[in-house]
Amino acid sequence: MMSERLTLHGDLLDQHRLAQVLDELDALGVTTRLRRFRVGENSTDPSLAELTIQAHDHGLLVSACRRAGELGATYDDAEVELATTDVDGVLPEGFHSTTNFPTYVLHGGEAIPVEGIEMDCGIRLRWDTDRWRAETCPMHKAQVGDTFVVGSTGVRVDVGEDAADHRLDFEFMSSDVSTERPKRRMIADAADAIRAARAADLDVVFVGGPAIVHSGSAHLLAQLIENGWVTVLLAGNALAAHDIEANMLGTSLGVDLDTGRSGPHGHTHHLRAINRVRRAGSIAAAVSAGDITGGVMYTCVTTDTPFVLCGSIRDDGPLPDVIPNVLDATDAMRAQVGNAAVCLMVATMLHSVAVGNILPASVTTFCVDTDADTVIKLTDRGTHQATGIVTDCEYFLSELCRHLDGES
Amino acid sequence: MMSERLTLHGDLLDQHRLAQVLDELDALGVTTRLRRFRVGENSTDPSLAELTIQAHDHGLLVSACRRAGELGATYDDAEVELATTDVDGVLPEGFHSTTNFPTYVLHGGEAIPVEGIEMDCGIRLRWDTDRWRAETCPMHKAQVGDTFVVGSTGVRVDVGEDAADHRLDFEFMSSDVSTERPKRRMIADAADAIRAARAADLDVVFVGGPAIVHSGSAHLLAQLIENGWVTVLLAGNALAAHDIEANMLGTSLGVDLDTGRSGPHGHTHHLRAINRVRRAGSIAAAVSAGDITGGVMYTCVTTDTPFVLCGSIRDDGPLPDVIPNVLDATDAMRAQVGNAAVCLMVATMLHSVAVGNILPASVTTFCVDTDADTVIKLTDRGTHQATGIVTDCEYFLSELCRHLDGES
Amino acid sequence: MMSERLTLHGDLLDQHRLAQVLDELDALGVTTRLRRFRVGENSTDPSLAELTIQAHDHGLLVSACRRAGELGATYDDAEVELATTDVDGVLPEGFHSTTNFPTYVLHGGEAIPVEGIEMDCGIRLRWDTDRWRAETCPMHKAQVGDTFVVGSTGVRVDVGEDAADHRLDFEFMSSDVSTERPKRRMIADAADAIRAARAADLDVVFVGGPAIVHSGSAHLLAQLIENGWVTVLLAGNALAAHDIEANMLGTSLGVDLDTGRSGPHGHTHHLRAINRVRRAGSIAAAVSAGDITGGVMYTCVTTDTPFVLCGSIRDDGPLPDVIPNVLDATDAMRAQVGNAAVCLMVATMLHSVAVGNILPASVTTFCVDTDADTVIKLTDRGTHQATGIVTDCEYFLSELCRHLDGES
Amino acid sequence: MMSERLTLHGDLLDQHRLAQVLDELDALGVTTRLRRFRVGENSTDPSLAELTIQAHDHGLLVSACRRAGELGATYDDAEVELATTDVDGVLPEGFHSTTNFPTYVLHGGEAIPVEGIEMDCGIRLRWDTDRWRAETCPMHKAQVGDTFVVGSTGVRVDVGEDAADHRLDFEFMSSDVSTERPKRRMIADAADAIRAARAADLDVVFVGGPAIVHSGSAHLLAQLIENGWVTVLLAGNALAAHDIEANMLGTSLGVDLDTGRSGPHGHTHHLRAINRVRRAGSIAAAVSAGDITGGVMYTCVTTDTPFVLCGSIRDDGPLPDVIPNVLDATDAMRAQVGNAAVCLMVATMLHSVAVGNILPASVTTFCVDTDADTVIKLTDRGTHQATGIVTDCEYFLSELCRHLDGES
Repeated sequence: MMSERLTLHGDLLDQHRLAQVLDELDALGVTTRLRRFRVGENSTDPSLAELTIQAHDHGLLVSACRRAGELGATYDDAEVELATTDVDGVLPEGFHSTTNFPTYVLHGGEAIPVEGIEMDCGIRLRWDTDRWRAETCPMHKAQVGDTFVVGSTGVRVDVGEDAADHRLDFEFMSSDVSTERPKRRMIADAADAIRAARAADLDVVFVGGPAIVHSGSAHLLAQLIENGWVTVLLAGNALAAHDIEANMLGTSLGVDLDTGRSGPHGHTHHLRAINRVRRAGSIAAAVSAGDITGGVMYTCVTTDTPFVLCGSIRDDGPLPDVIPNVLDATDAMRAQVGNAAVCLMVATMLHSVAVGNILPASVTTFCVDTDADTVIKLTDRGTHQATGIVTDCEYFLSELCRHLDGES
Repeated sequence: MMSERLTLHGDLLDQHRLAQVLDELDALGVTTRLRRFRVGENSTDPSLAELTIQAHDHGLLVSACRRAGELGATYDDAEVELATTDVDGVLPEGFHSTTNFPTYVLHGGEAIPVEGIEMDCGIRLRWDTDRWRAETCPMHKAQVGDTFVVGSTGVRVDVGEDAADHRLDFEFMSSDVSTERPKRRMIADAADAIRAARAADLDVVFVGGPAIVHSGSAHLLAQLIENGWVTVLLAGNALAAHDIEANMLGTSLGVDLDTGRSGPHGHTHHLRAINRVRRAGSIAAAVSAGDITGGVMYTCVTTDTPFVLCGSIRDDGPLPDVIPNVLDATDAMRAQVGNAAVCLMVATMLHSVAVGNILPASVTTFCVDTDADTVIKLTDRGTHQATGIVTDCEYFLSELCRHLDGES
Repeated sequence: MMSERLTLHGDLLDQHRLAQVLDELDALGVTTRLRRFRVGENSTDPSLAELTIQAHDHGLLVSACRRAGELGATYDDAEVELATTDVDGVLPEGFHSTTNFPTYVLHGGEAIPVEGIEMDCGIRLRWDTDRWRAETCPMHKAQVGDTFVVGSTGVRVDVGEDAADHRLDFEFMSSDVSTERPKRRMIADAADAIRAARAADLDVVFVGGPAIVHSGSAHLLAQLIENGWVTVLLAGNALAAHDIEANMLGTSLGVDLDTGRSGPHGHTHHLRAINRVRRAGSIAAAVSAGDITGGVMYTCVTTDTPFVLCGSIRDDGPLPDVIPNVLDATDAMRAQVGNAAVCLMVATMLHSVAVGNILPASVTTFCVDTDADTVIKLTDRGTHQATGIVTDCEYFLSELCRHLDGES
Repeated sequence: MMSERLTLHGDLLDQHRLAQVLDELDALGVTTRLRRFRVGENSTDPSLAELTIQAHDHGLLVSACRRAGELGATYDDAEVELATTDVDGVLPEGFHSTTNFPTYVLHGGEAIPVEGIEMDCGIRLRWDTDRWRAETCPMHKAQVGDTFVVGSTGVRVDVGEDAADHRLDFEFMSSDVSTERPKRRMIADAADAIRAARAADLDVVFVGGPAIVHSGSAHLLAQLIENGWVTVLLAGNALAAHDIEANMLGTSLGVDLDTGRSGPHGHTHHLRAINRVRRAGSIAAAVSAGDITGGVMYTCVTTDTPFVLCGSIRDDGPLPDVIPNVLDATDAMRAQVGNAAVCLMVATMLHSVAVGNILPASVTTFCVDTDADTVIKLTDRGTHQATGIVTDCEYFLSELCRHLDGES
């Protein structure tokens, strides 16, 4: 199926030019689709129409283009430009680089199919007995004197009917979620969104998992809260318990945060910390009593930043502030997100999906996880607005602090 | 930004009805986009136009719809249907289930915005002082006597300008690659593609990594080759070496394939196997000499199935059949894929990307890996046609054999 | 640091031979460690002692060995065996294959250090001016006439002091969790454990996530319950809801389980299913009423198999059987695991860790997940007894059914 | 199987005390293992022996301990300490926290088995009719007046025979590779190792993948080379090609490194860059000609830092410096690693395994990857010395630069 793109400019409606073009193309027997049509916003603005016509036969396609041209449509009928190799293994500068779709080149009044379709090659033209032939050629096989297509003029790529419907182009790096993108840029975007939200006095909700503490990054989250960049914290027993464990005993899940080593009896540390807070009655009471002297939860208490700790079946203790009934816990979160403009979901799949469930799509959402799967699961459950940043919470938080506060 | 969809049927071109509608809408000051336009394939077929009109003001939108209606356009102006809760915590059957986009419901001649936008809820309507209000309500909070919207009639969802351009609907499970899909179905599709290719005497190319041997599945690949379902094998030193190690010594990378345990001196096994084949001079010679008596490579030799073993810098030995120059190796693969209709890429990222590079997009390609990232990397490098199956090679191969040969 | 291993057999206690050996070695100035010592269980059994002696100087080590030998200790002082290459690029059969640790070979009364240490090579010996030298040689560089070490006799590998303490040997595939093992064997082990548990009338607890339904494997789990192999089910709202959605509407999270495609309005399906069960009052009531006619939950009800559904903050609905208070939910699970001999944890990280927390280490536990990280997290939280099977739940369940029931 | 640990100090050899103890224990019928035995390094140092004795019967164990005590052995026979709960849901400070292994507590002259074994609980003692019973109790179920064990004195945990052999203790976070560790510390260790290597004039080898460029971190690697911290670069065509693409065209695989977006024709960029270098003849020539003005490869050339670019079958172009024969490429790498003290492997599995294969175990090796599986594969192929850092290359490199150079 060969296709060609036609464009019509000007006053299409008053003069019924569009209707006439569509009518005649129909009569010729080609399939016509109106790809794009925009009426000028003011009546004096010119309107624009783009059509794609398709035919199985190249001759018919050419006739249709010519007739449309007579009616004022423009289309591209320029032939390919050629250049000659002057160094073995080197393509001419500006060489056309192939995709893996069927391709034709316009040359000598013909549409010549390219043989041996393969991506990332040049297109070599040669005269074979009585006609021109075109073929792909990997860079290192170019020979001095070979003729190659340069530029994209006169090159037609048949991306197939489905792809054409979606205006799909051949491209690299088209997936939404990838570990191979420059994350520095995405983190800068998150910082910009946070700044804008706070300037408008809207909330920035932070949903976080315990890996933030395990990885030694709790002080960065505390800093974001302290400086007013994060205004609501949604988490579970684990983040709070290990944050308090780290403050009381210097470990997280028993791992010394300075040396990275598991200490003796480390596995009891979080239980001891939780028990001490239960004795005090609440995290705020433990802060008042001087049992907790720093960290994420301490900063929430001292800055009056609201937090919701939701219960889960794997909780030890739990901390007295944890809401064990999950329906109540979800309601408590609903009560905090009504004014949210930005939501940061960091290193927690369960909680991210849960909060995604109760957020309107208008909340700018960033989902940070080392596992691309977490982001895929989140968007597969309806939170399409989430931008995935596949990275470490340490890196995300330190880079974010640097953007918002200068040095972290 | 509110929007409405209009439809025009019939003979739009001859009577210039489309042009008139566009003209008048423009005059009213709404933004109009022609979403879809199809000229009948034969001149007697009616044509069809779908337009979306957008306005910031609901009143203007309503006026525009009415005027378009007078000109023959149809649009949906039905109001929501309502039903009443009769059991606490249970929504009426057929309840409308919300998305996370801004939503309006048509009721009492008004477009009422839904408050508290959140996905997976019902929409409750209630009379508040002097007007109707609509709000989301989680299922468990429905009370006897509450009034809920049922069905989708009269519900308007504002998916935003961008999403509208891409005809995006709110949906779950929209990502291309996910570990959460029923793979049995996708494997059946692969089996169908293979059957069709072989019926047409076209090649089925298998690109495989050593995990096929490590996981104890080499006999399944050998069976596919033996039965003519796989007609070209592209692999590296590792798959072949461990396949031969398994045949000679019963281990793969030293792990006993029956017990799953590493044996003493297991780490030398693949080297001993490679050394023996080097002494014979080639894999085929080792088969002739009786040194290799089964497995994947044995079956390639005895069935005359072509194989290409490409070198890599982590190769031990390598086997005498391995092509150490990567440019020569790529050429050798090119020589084998010209007649391919199907390509199976199983458990090897490097090789999958390399083969993807030299395949035309028309080859039906399945990429099987336990890591979704491999499929993402492959499509991000231009092999858009690949269907990702995120699963184990053991499962894929045994299920595929069952589909193609009956019991495996 | 050179080391040598000495062995003493016989009646070591009565004759104080061990004490004497230790004493003399100490006097010579070598470091001695008693690696292994076993007193015969009956007094007539001979006892056994193994010692490692270490010295920085090879001469001292040799003297110490000789003196220990005079006192009845045995040690290995045989020199390396050699063979000559007869084909270029091929090592002599039985060649010694190197590790990456410092290595010495005993030859001509000397301990000759091997130069150019690198794994997976042969050891080539050559006479250089006035002495023997040894060096690693990759297989493909062996030349006809070269002399290589064969076997391990006379080869000394210095694995370092730490590794020696842990009796570490150089080996491949030593990690506990790997995607590269033959899983068929591990699944057979699980089947054996289940059979043994049921023969002893002990419980087999199944902890499962919703991916079991999404992947189209719910019928396999239902079969295991039906046939009495699984006697307790621990899960959350999602597994049960999607199982019932699949039975009522043929989809899971809106994805058609036959075609693998998301249908229109698919995202509302699980809510409709949950709502219907809420109306009935419980899953059992919905089964009685004929609303649910098959699947996992249906089979639990009809076979009187106990199940516990624990609440989580991401639950929609939830189903009326779900216990929303997580402390109550955990107690309900505790009440079901007291008689457990085997626990299968399939495709659910949160629930696996939660159940791991309440199980004694004596319960044989298999953790099945596509992500090795889940198993690592589980064992890092104290459930050391878990055997990780890094694979797809579809494959695990179909293979398990085949082992237990014949064809699945 | 109950067990007890005995310790003997002093001059054990001369007086044959050890032999006598072993003899008598044997006569009593308990199983004795010598766990640890250390002869003083100088003959005047006291020696030390630790024995574990095991018996199925607690009475026998007690008799054996008493007899050994008479012979000078020490052992722990203290009973548990108890404390009483004074707040509901709070355990007494210092409470003993359980593991999931069978546990006994010494109280009232008895070894009382703890019932309901479960980790992370307290141990509650209560008088039941005519005897003491012990049971686990989750923190939130402690009632005022309950009696709990505090500390570890008098608590016996039966870790099983296998675990005892490996001196295994119950602990959290025991796996070697985990995403949940504080990476900041590990990166500081890498910085220290690099400083030490450079101070000793030894090489620091960097093995890198193209994700370094894709993620926008190439300038950090260039900085490490510029400042002499990295002295050898081992990579493939992709890293070098995208680094040069980024310098020439501002993109990596067509993705703009400032905006993170794929530009038009982006997929041809790396080919244009490679072609230009091929025209120049080599990377060094392109630098001299002013075609390359910055980046990793530029810095290698201008600082005379040796690099080896190894070919692979997925190479486009390739760059003229790439060695297409993999055996030659491996030899070229061997020639560069002879003086290496540290090796950093960053974001490349294939290359990491390949270089791991040719490095002696004495080279301090750090393997940095977002996927824990890469590190597992590397150590499973014999490179046991590698320390895995499961993180992003952006984070690793920026943190490393900060450690080595101050601000990055």
